[in-house]
Order: sequence, then structure tokens, then C-alpha cells
Amino acid sequence: MPTARAYAIDSPTGRFAPTTIARREPGPTEVLFDIKYAGICHSDIHTARGEWGRTTYPLVPGHELAGVVTQVGSQVTKFAVGDRVGVGCFVDSCGQCDECRRGEENFCEGPDGGTIWTYNDVGRDGLPTAGGYSTCFTVEQDYTLRIPESIPLENAAPLLCAGITTYSPLKRWGAGPGKRVAIVGMGGLGHMGVQIAAAMGATTAVISQTRNKEEDARRFGATEFYALSEPDTLKKLHRSFDLMVSTVSSAAPLDPILDCLAIEGAFVDVGLPEKPSQLQLRTLCGGNRILAGSNIGGIPATQEMLDFCAAHGLKAQTEVISASEINEAYDNVVASKVRYRYVIDASTI
Amino acid sequence: MPTARAYAIDSPTGRFAPTTIARREPGPTEVLFDIKYAGICHSDIHTARGEWGRTTYPLVPGHELAGVVTQVGSQVTKFAVGDRVGVGCFVDSCGQCDECRRGEENFCEGPDGGTIWTYNDVGRDGLPTAGGYSTCFTVEQDYTLRIPESIPLENAAPLLCAGITTYSPLKRWGAGPGKRVAIVGMGGLGHMGVQIAAAMGATTAVISQTRNKEEDARRFGATEFYALSEPDTLKKLHRSFDLMVSTVSSAAPLDPILDCLAIEGAFVDVGLPEKPSQLQLRTLCGGNRILAGSNIGGIPATQEMLDFCAAHGLKAQTEVISASEINEAYDNVVASKVRYRYVIDASTI
Repeated sequence: MPTARAYAIDSPTGRFAPTTIARREPGPTEVLFDIKYAGICHSDIHTARGEWGRTTYPLVPGHELAGVVTQVGSQVTKFAVGDRVGVGCFVDSCGQCDECRRGEENFCEGPDGGTIWTYNDVGRDGLPTAGGYSTCFTVEQDYTLRIPESIPLENAAPLLCAGITTYSPLKRWGAGPGKRVAIVGMGGLGHMGVQIAAAMGATTAVISQTRNKEEDARRFGATEFYALSEPDTLKKLHRSFDLMVSTVSSAAPLDPILDCLAIEGAFVDVGLPEKPSQLQLRTLCGGNRILAGSNIGGIPATQEMLDFCAAHGLKAQTEVISASEINEAYDNVVASKVRYRYVIDASTI
Repeated sequence: MPTARAYAIDSPTGRFAPTTIARREPGPTEVLFDIKYAGICHSDIHTARGEWGRTTYPLVPGHELAGVVTQVGSQVTKFAVGDRVGVGCFVDSCGQCDECRRGEENFCEGPDGGTIWTYNDVGRDGLPTAGGYSTCFTVEQDYTLRIPESIPLENAAPLLCAGITTYSPLKRWGAGPGKRVAIVGMGGLGHMGVQIAAAMGATTAVISQTRNKEEDARRFGATEFYALSEPDTLKKLHRSFDLMVSTVSSAAPLDPILDCLAIEGAFVDVGLPEKPSQLQLRTLCGGNRILAGSNIGGIPATQEMLDFCAAHGLKAQTEVISASEINEAYDNVVASKVRYRYVIDASTI
């Protein structure tokens, strides 16, 4: 049975420390791959610190994995040893329900418990799932993504969550030529959202707290930049955008920002605030406006996003760290100090 | 200058009493019509009682008007004396902006103050607008609806608000064969929503507080009925509906009812709660769900709705009252005692 080195945390207030975990010997349709890089997502922090409840410790987080296949099961047809692969937020689902059949495995509620998440869940083998802060990974070929050759693995890893999280609503809600799109908040998710919206051909704006990131935003493809710290920013944006994708996790009253939507415009949240949000429904009614949510995407959409990023030369802007820096990195993510995604070099684990 | 008898209210706590108001002599493109029936909408009550702020007294409410043309201006081409006509929530707009050009005059924010509402607003002539609780009305032909011959005027009046308010989101969000649609709350709006959704071919459910209205709901075309007073009603409806149209004006937490939406389903509010509503955005994210608002419809959509109702034999179920009963009727509407819309017989004004 393959053994992985990993970094785990033992309690909500603990610190990450090295450990060893077992990985499955790949079954007939599974692949085993060496993890090269693993992104640090804000969700990892919420989960590690118990902020979303239901965390099982010890926890090995990480749902942005990029690596190279080292072993394949006897019936694996999609991948070969040496292939560049990735795993995102989930590793399994029932495969039978309407959602799975439509390729939306992320919404599976099938008989065996539905979508199986990459960490903090229980796999079909009955063992806790352990994520990407580790050196190798066993996974079904059908839940494995192919990373295009043109994207370096360290820049590809964050696409498996941050990329699909923003690509999915931008595609579904029609970002493209002639559309005014705003990305609200430009962190790990937002910096991908800006690139993707611009690559889709939309007129892309960034709404950020300050002007600190304006130069980066324009480099990523934004042609407009608005700072909330300046007076009346949102008032001036009344009815301005066809689509807004919000990556912020604070739960401020929604009305002022929803008012920036044009008639029939859509505001899509991907930031998952912990606390309840408040709004006056009349803000939506007065303009046939839409408040929607979006949660990653299924395997087909995730592969499509990777291929889209390759075709348009998009990649995550990363800061590579060693595993011993995870604790410090977490604090920096919470303080919005990262530009724009930390990835752990798995060789340091 | 035409004079109308009317019923007006003088203060938030006042009672309706008879009065006389002046109507404009119809201009070249205007029509003058005798009001035959005027519906009582819950919005009238909110406005008359000052619950939405900004009420100018004395107030003559009423934005569901049905009557017969008695005079036309020299350049009127669309209507002739004797035609059956109606007026809904608005009577004018700039006619120049993007919204007006698209036939969404209800969202006009043009240079002269935008949409001019049928009452509690100021017309282009600088005078307060006065609504349907009166005996005649002057209006531009372009803001006048044609009432199909097959719909009795008393049953047509409520369509001008309750009909378009529910038709608009049902059409936009795809109510039709193969879709599961729920109408939440079956009052004046809801009883039209059920009929329209069923006529569009959707599998139509009603979610109501109790089973009191179940028989009516099934007569209107619902094939499913759920009572919130019964245990775990909403829990059992997890992921059940492609579209929900909520006509309720209470601001209960939205999460339990949003959870009844299927993946990518839409919950459209038309009930306009006074108080802010609360939700966890993750309820939307966990299923790519949609919370939207909808506010009446433009002139083209309203005419389309009237023609749709005629084609499908739909009409508002009304209780005709005399003008002296308005005060009592208001109390009954608030207490949900009306089945399903009061209309004032204008001959009693």
C-alpha cells in the first residue's frame, strides 16, 4: 500500500505538522499520482480552523492538486504513467443520479452519501479522505483531470478550485462580448475571475476595497477598477453591470452592491460568507435582478475550464512555499497578503 | 375638463370617503375612459396606510382599472370610443431610454423622473396622479391596454397588476411542460399564478399556510398542494421545484424554502416584504440556485398576458363590492379573507 508524507492539523487551534498517511493501492480503474503542487484555498483555512463546523481531525486539507501519474489500474484507459493530472474538490460520487449523469457530480446526493469531497469526508473505502498537502494520491480515473502541457503544474493547481469556481458562473451567466462584468474582490478566486471574464471577451471591471491591486487587475485584463474605500463608489455604479461575480466572504448587506446590477443582471456569489446575508427583496424586484450562487463545477466543466485556460494562456499567479510555511501562509491568506495563491511544493513535505 | 367622482384617503389612519377630482381633457394622443371596475391590490393598502413611506395625501389608489373608452384625442389610432380598455401600475415613462425602447417602461429612469405610476406620483402635467378608485381616467394610448372581449371587465381588472406580476416571472423563467413550478402563497397574486403556470403546461404546486385553499388551488389547475402548517413540509420538498414564485409579503428566513429548489432552480419574489430578508448564500451555492425578483411588466408583456389569459380562458376570481365597502375590504385583504380579489364597482362611487 502506498504511503504518503503529509501535513496535518490536529485541532481548530493547532498548527500543521508533518505526518504519514496511507493511500489506497490503485484499483482497476484508479490512478496513483505523485503530487507536485497543492494550492492553499481559503476553504482549507475555514475547515482547518473548524469555522464551518463538522471538521474531523487530524485533517490533511488541499483540494487543488497537480501532479504526475506513477501507476495505473489494469482497466485504466484515460491516463498513462507520466501524464500530468489534477484533482479538485471531489474524488467520487454515485455516478447514477441525474446530477452525475449530467456531469454535475458536485451536486450528487446519491445513495452512498453523494459527492465525496477530497478531504474531510469519508471515501467509499470507509476511510477518511485526506487532501493535497501530501506527496501522492489515489483516485478514480473518472474524477481525474488532465492538465494541458502549456500550463506549469504550480500554476495549474489553483485552477482546480479557484479556476472552476469562477469559470462556471461566468460561462453560465453569459460573460462575453458586449457584456459588462464585475469581479467583486480580487484574491485567489477573483484574480482568476478577472482573467477568465476578459478572455471570454467581456468588458471586465474589478471592485476592490482599495486601489492596491489596480495595476494587477489591469494586467489580468480588467479595463475598469473601482475602490469601495472611495466615496459613493457603489451609488455611481447604479445599474452598471450585466453580471457580477462576488468572491468576498464578508456578509455585508447586499442591497448597495446589488443595486449596481443592470435590469435583469445577475449577481453570483462564490464567496460563501459564514454569516447570514441580508437584503431587501425589492432591490431585486426593482429591475428583475438575480442573486445566484455557484459552487465549483462537475468534471466535464472543470476539464473544459483547464482547456480554456490553456487556449487563452491563463494561469494562476502563485507564490510557491515549502510545507513548513503553511501556518504562516494561512495567516497571510486571511490578511489578504498573498499574490494571489500559495501553492505548496510537495517535495518539501 | 372631465370631472371624476372618487374615493380618497386623507392620512395613514384615515378612512376612504367620497370626493371629486379633475381629469385631463384628453390630449391629441390620449384617451378618456369610464372606469367600470377597479381592483384592490395589497399595494394599495401599503401605500394608503403609509407603510412604504412617501405617500402623498389625499390619495386615490387603484392600479387595476378596466373600463370603456368615451373620448379619444385627434391623433389616437389605437383605440376608438366604445373599446374595452385597461390601465395597470403605470401611465407614462420617458419613451426614449433603453428600457422604454425594449418595452420595459416599468423600469424607466428617464430624464423626467422615469416611470410615472398610476397613483401616488406626479404626472407630466405636474399634477398628482390619482388611481382607479374613481369614475373616469385620461391616459396616453401607448400606456393603455386592450381587454379581450372574452374576459368580463370585472375579472379583467385584477389582471393589470396580479396577472402581469405572476405571468412575467413564469414566462421569463420557463414555466412549461416538464417543469415543476410552485406558487408560494395563494392570494390575489397567487391565484393568478396557479392558473397561468398550469395553462403554460407546468406541473403546478401550491405552497400555502394551511389546506383551506386546497380545493380552490386544484380548481385553478394545481396538481400538488403543500401546507406549511404540517410538519417538515419544506424538508420533504428538498430539491423539488425548477421554479418557485413567491407572492408572500412576510420576511421569514429564506433558506428553508430556497432549499426546495432543484439544481439551477429559480425562486422569484413578487411579494415585496417590507422588512429585510435573510439567507445563507451557501443555500444558493449548494445547487447553483437562483433568487430573483420581478416587478410587473412593460406594456407589450402586459398585453401579451391579457391575450394569453383570453386564449386560455383565465380570469381573476373576484368579489365585487361597492365603494362604501373599501375600508372593510382593506381589513379583509390583510386578514386573507378575500377570494381572491376585491373589485370596486365604479358605478357605486
